[in-house]
Amino acid sequence: MIRAGIVGGTGYTGVELLRILALHPEVEVTAVTSRADAGLRVDKLYPSLRGMCDAVFSLPEVERLADCDVVFFATPNGTTMQTAPDLLARGSKVIDLSADFRIKDVAEWEKWYGMPHASPQLIAEAVYGLPEVNRLAIQEARLIACPGCYPTAVQLGLLPLLENGLVDAGYLIADVKSGVSGAGRKAELSSLMSEAGESFKAYAVAGHRHLPEIRQGLQRATSEQVGLTFVPHLTPMIRGIHATLYARLKQDVDLQALFEQRYQNEAFVDVLPAGSHADTRNVRGSNRCQIAVHRPQGSDTVVILSVIDNLVKGASGQAVQAMNLMFGLPEQQGLRTVALYP
Amino acid sequence: MIRAGIVGGTGYTGVELLRILALHPEVEVTAVTSRADAGLRVDKLYPSLRGMCDAVFSLPEVERLADCDVVFFATPNGTTMQTAPDLLARGSKVIDLSADFRIKDVAEWEKWYGMPHASPQLIAEAVYGLPEVNRLAIQEARLIACPGCYPTAVQLGLLPLLENGLVDAGYLIADVKSGVSGAGRKAELSSLMSEAGESFKAYAVAGHRHLPEIRQGLQRATSEQVGLTFVPHLTPMIRGIHATLYARLKQDVDLQALFEQRYQNEAFVDVLPAGSHADTRNVRGSNRCQIAVHRPQGSDTVVILSVIDNLVKGASGQAVQAMNLMFGLPEQQGLRTVALYP
Amino acid sequence: MIRAGIVGGTGYTGVELLRILALHPEVEVTAVTSRADAGLRVDKLYPSLRGMCDAVFSLPEVERLADCDVVFFATPNGTTMQTAPDLLARGSKVIDLSADFRIKDVAEWEKWYGMPHASPQLIAEAVYGLPEVNRLAIQEARLIACPGCYPTAVQLGLLPLLENGLVDAGYLIADVKSGVSGAGRKAELSSLMSEAGESFKAYAVAGHRHLPEIRQGLQRATSEQVGLTFVPHLTPMIRGIHATLYARLKQDVDLQALFEQRYQNEAFVDVLPAGSHADTRNVRGSNRCQIAVHRPQGSDTVVILSVIDNLVKGASGQAVQAMNLMFGLPEQQGLRTVALYP
Amino acid sequence: MIRAGIVGGTGYTGVELLRILALHPEVEVTAVTSRADAGLRVDKLYPSLRGMCDAVFSLPEVERLADCDVVFFATPNGTTMQTAPDLLARGSKVIDLSADFRIKDVAEWEKWYGMPHASPQLIAEAVYGLPEVNRLAIQEARLIACPGCYPTAVQLGLLPLLENGLVDAGYLIADVKSGVSGAGRKAELSSLMSEAGESFKAYAVAGHRHLPEIRQGLQRATSEQVGLTFVPHLTPMIRGIHATLYARLKQDVDLQALFEQRYQNEAFVDVLPAGSHADTRNVRGSNRCQIAVHRPQGSDTVVILSVIDNLVKGASGQAVQAMNLMFGLPEQQGLRTVALYP
Repeated sequence: MIRAGIVGGTGYTGVELLRILALHPEVEVTAVTSRADAGLRVDKLYPSLRGMCDAVFSLPEVERLADCDVVFFATPNGTTMQTAPDLLARGSKVIDLSADFRIKDVAEWEKWYGMPHASPQLIAEAVYGLPEVNRLAIQEARLIACPGCYPTAVQLGLLPLLENGLVDAGYLIADVKSGVSGAGRKAELSSLMSEAGESFKAYAVAGHRHLPEIRQGLQRATSEQVGLTFVPHLTPMIRGIHATLYARLKQDVDLQALFEQRYQNEAFVDVLPAGSHADTRNVRGSNRCQIAVHRPQGSDTVVILSVIDNLVKGASGQAVQAMNLMFGLPEQQGLRTVALYP
Repeated sequence: MIRAGIVGGTGYTGVELLRILALHPEVEVTAVTSRADAGLRVDKLYPSLRGMCDAVFSLPEVERLADCDVVFFATPNGTTMQTAPDLLARGSKVIDLSADFRIKDVAEWEKWYGMPHASPQLIAEAVYGLPEVNRLAIQEARLIACPGCYPTAVQLGLLPLLENGLVDAGYLIADVKSGVSGAGRKAELSSLMSEAGESFKAYAVAGHRHLPEIRQGLQRATSEQVGLTFVPHLTPMIRGIHATLYARLKQDVDLQALFEQRYQNEAFVDVLPAGSHADTRNVRGSNRCQIAVHRPQGSDTVVILSVIDNLVKGASGQAVQAMNLMFGLPEQQGLRTVALYP
Repeated sequence: MIRAGIVGGTGYTGVELLRILALHPEVEVTAVTSRADAGLRVDKLYPSLRGMCDAVFSLPEVERLADCDVVFFATPNGTTMQTAPDLLARGSKVIDLSADFRIKDVAEWEKWYGMPHASPQLIAEAVYGLPEVNRLAIQEARLIACPGCYPTAVQLGLLPLLENGLVDAGYLIADVKSGVSGAGRKAELSSLMSEAGESFKAYAVAGHRHLPEIRQGLQRATSEQVGLTFVPHLTPMIRGIHATLYARLKQDVDLQALFEQRYQNEAFVDVLPAGSHADTRNVRGSNRCQIAVHRPQGSDTVVILSVIDNLVKGASGQAVQAMNLMFGLPEQQGLRTVALYP
Repeated sequence: MIRAGIVGGTGYTGVELLRILALHPEVEVTAVTSRADAGLRVDKLYPSLRGMCDAVFSLPEVERLADCDVVFFATPNGTTMQTAPDLLARGSKVIDLSADFRIKDVAEWEKWYGMPHASPQLIAEAVYGLPEVNRLAIQEARLIACPGCYPTAVQLGLLPLLENGLVDAGYLIADVKSGVSGAGRKAELSSLMSEAGESFKAYAVAGHRHLPEIRQGLQRATSEQVGLTFVPHLTPMIRGIHATLYARLKQDVDLQALFEQRYQNEAFVDVLPAGSHADTRNVRGSNRCQIAVHRPQGSDTVVILSVIDNLVKGASGQAVQAMNLMFGLPEQQGLRTVALYP
């Protein structure tokens, strides 16, 4: 059994890790930390886990965590970079769900995240945990930077086009809609049901932290200069991301075949039949990305619809997928579920 | 492998059976019927099942169904009673999620359901599929009448009190709130999001079809005459039932201990710690009933809070639980999941 | 023009007062206070008010407020009782939407609200602002204690029964469901959309602060000892309260006629036709209470369904109704609107 | 008093007309028709209107309607074109909320709406009822074609750019999100709360009927050939449309000033301060369009956020605005309200 620790177990990605790992046949969760709730049974805070989890929240002490084969960080940005060096030195692997190791350019990271980076020496080693792009590197990695939720949906939708040089990389548009759980389990006015319910809005149009991450990911796939307009929106539901992606075709191509071939061996990317519309409810609670490809009225504008559950393929499920790869387990282990519909 | 058939696979209890059985290690779904969609791949209608279900909807022909070890009926009321005799005669077991065999008194059934009963000879044999009450009978049964969603939540909440003669059976109140999926996948005005969303209402206060079923179930537990006021409500969410139950205590008793003992061996009934409030989100997608017991201000009024997912413990999950019992499988097989929170 | 001030203009009852008063032909809002947002234009915080409100948040200074004919307190509990004596002494009338003056028994108030009362000398004078009970006293009052949202829905539903001695006052049940705006515009985890959305739960079953207020109001209507079980619930919508009320009839009576007669001259209480179900959407944004009366299966249990918009008839609308009475205006002025459906 | 008739009073735009006109000081609703509900009191179907509307649904007979000064058609497409000629001949004005007279090119209309046009001779005369573009023509018109909901939000957002030749008209993107009331009060599976709730999806990406209408409206503002990609989405809320619009700037310009000047005299178009995000909740129930203008990271891509309430500025409110203009009333009469927030 793999001994797993979870740092920051009280947020939504933390409890989602607990949900997934509780049923993973090869993993035993041996530490769940929370400064605020140390000493409390996990299932007292999360009654959904009663009978499935005997853990008690502990303080995030390195001693205890170093005893784990792998430590997941489901923490706010700026935490993993403090502790990861120690854990890696003691032989634990680290899977970071925060943004600490996602951006390769330190200055860029520091600009967007507003703090100095505490472990710049690890950035080069950290592997960006998108298996559909980096599978081999993930298998060998000690330190994984799990992609953000928006970046996962956008990259899976645009990469097949960029990898094949089919669209104008300089003029990409990502209009993306997220459920409110993406804002985390934080007491903020803007996440109140009275504020976010029955309403729809864009936010951070001037610049969202996921922009440089997406740009970096797309840039790797093309030699052209990537130009991306990314507009995130808040939609009144709990789980789910729907990316609507626009790009200009440079040549004629069978888009449906292109996407099907690109993802034919991917268990967690499902290209829907031609003419389909992707619907977030069909991936709710599952680790799957569903993609639909359109070219309306035969114009040269491609429209890609890409949906994920932000807490699963956009966070904790993808983290477990990476863990499976790192430990030589079947990639789908513990992740073969069916979305909860309706 | 158990060969299972599903009649009426296009409704919410049908697709929920498919979701559960797709991951059940001992079951193979060999027939899914739908008159309207015969010939269509199931995963075309339900993209959440892509990759998990290769079935194609077929016509509900007895020949094909009789080839199954067990046939689930996820049909409107009045269908199972037409076909069950044939299937039973040919050796298939039948698990009915509709109301056809729930009421023992034929005249009562015919009054509430507004049609003559087509198979009254089977009513006595049919076993009411509430394992927490009828486990042994279910193990031996050929024909199961699965309890309704409201009746499941109400009975599990009130039975411990009635079985021990602790409350006035003549004055029970069940104020119950259901998510809209309880109305099924039917194109009706009252189930539109524009009608049911952002609103709350009672309905069928004069008399709901689940009233005689609940009364029958409660009456079995007591020799007193049961008097029950049952008020169902529609709450603006998709899944979940919350029953708030009121009864007058006849004597002092440790209610918390009473409930804990009654359900100590039940895998799917979870008595919450004293002082808790049950929350439907904590059972969403799971087969569990969570119960909290209160006696506000020390008065003689007991308040029981009982929550289930109406499509799981209130329908398809409970049906699979019964199937496990009927085929000698571990009762939790295929049902050990964690609720989808948030 | 009546000069009105609003203390605590940044909460939901504050902005609702602004919405209503912006269109009231006899009122000019001359002060809106907020410690946190002093100096900010009101319509910067609430863009819904752009073009309808030129006010700027100011500090809650008595000098400025004393210049108003009437001051509404849309503040947390414990604030009005500090400032009201001063304002009354200077000739302003005070309408308090908080709980400071609702309970006549000071000790009881201090027990439930957990603080000493700062102005006990004003409690006797304060008029409980439920016009359907206290119209004449409201007309003469200097200080109004506006009823809570739950108490409004429950009292309007039960009073006709108690006033006529028709039910057992010792065994009343109020099962009440509230939208999340009732919790106010406060950054609390339990009000997040990810927590409160798609879920239903009871809370404060052991004792909610509105219990003594409801009990006091009901007790005034009967010489019998009132016994009340009050269970509040949170339902996943923004606005609306639905009270389902249960009582035991002591004698036969035409309930429909009783309610219609009781409220025949009330502009804001609407008794629905026999057989109706009240629906919160039909009062959304309006100052109306709609009531439906049932006696299921002819038993001796009366079931009353009573709905209001918690922010209007349950708070700010009722406050303006009281203001109209205090200043000799038509009771409906500024309140004649149609609910926003769908 | 203007005598107004409403044909098709049972749909959402019909009941919204009733809500608005009930409080309009210059209008008396003298006929409300419904084939299915003829003979029924309107407030029986819509209890929100109790006390505000004494009308009874009648059959849609021309005799009765011709007695009105103005007749609103809140009907499915294909109805107005049958009856309008008769009513116009008898001197009534006609305001059509359906699509019958929106498209000037008959062949184009017939292609998208799948039926022959019954009154092609009236198409040239019909005035497209967008006051911000056609105010003078509306004042003189007998027959108004009210814009669709999507077209209203998109045109108001893009016209200032096109009218001034500032963007590449050949590459416009409109990513638009609508609440579910846009689908009308029709019993369709896709509008069920269990289907549309807690989920997000695009639909009709291959081509939506509002595409030619939007294209026509934009084309009028520019001599360049308009190229538009329009992707409508369904978002899990009842009311509201949020258009996110993308265009490429051809020259540098002060976008904020441009929009403010274009709409400075428009009562119902509100350009938000620079840096704002538009939020559908801030226009819920009001006739206002709120617009925010962005140019992220100083690139040449303009992002316009444009929000309306689809049932008000997107339908019934805009229809009443047109009526005010046609009858020489103040344009805001009956429409000066504040959005219902929260």
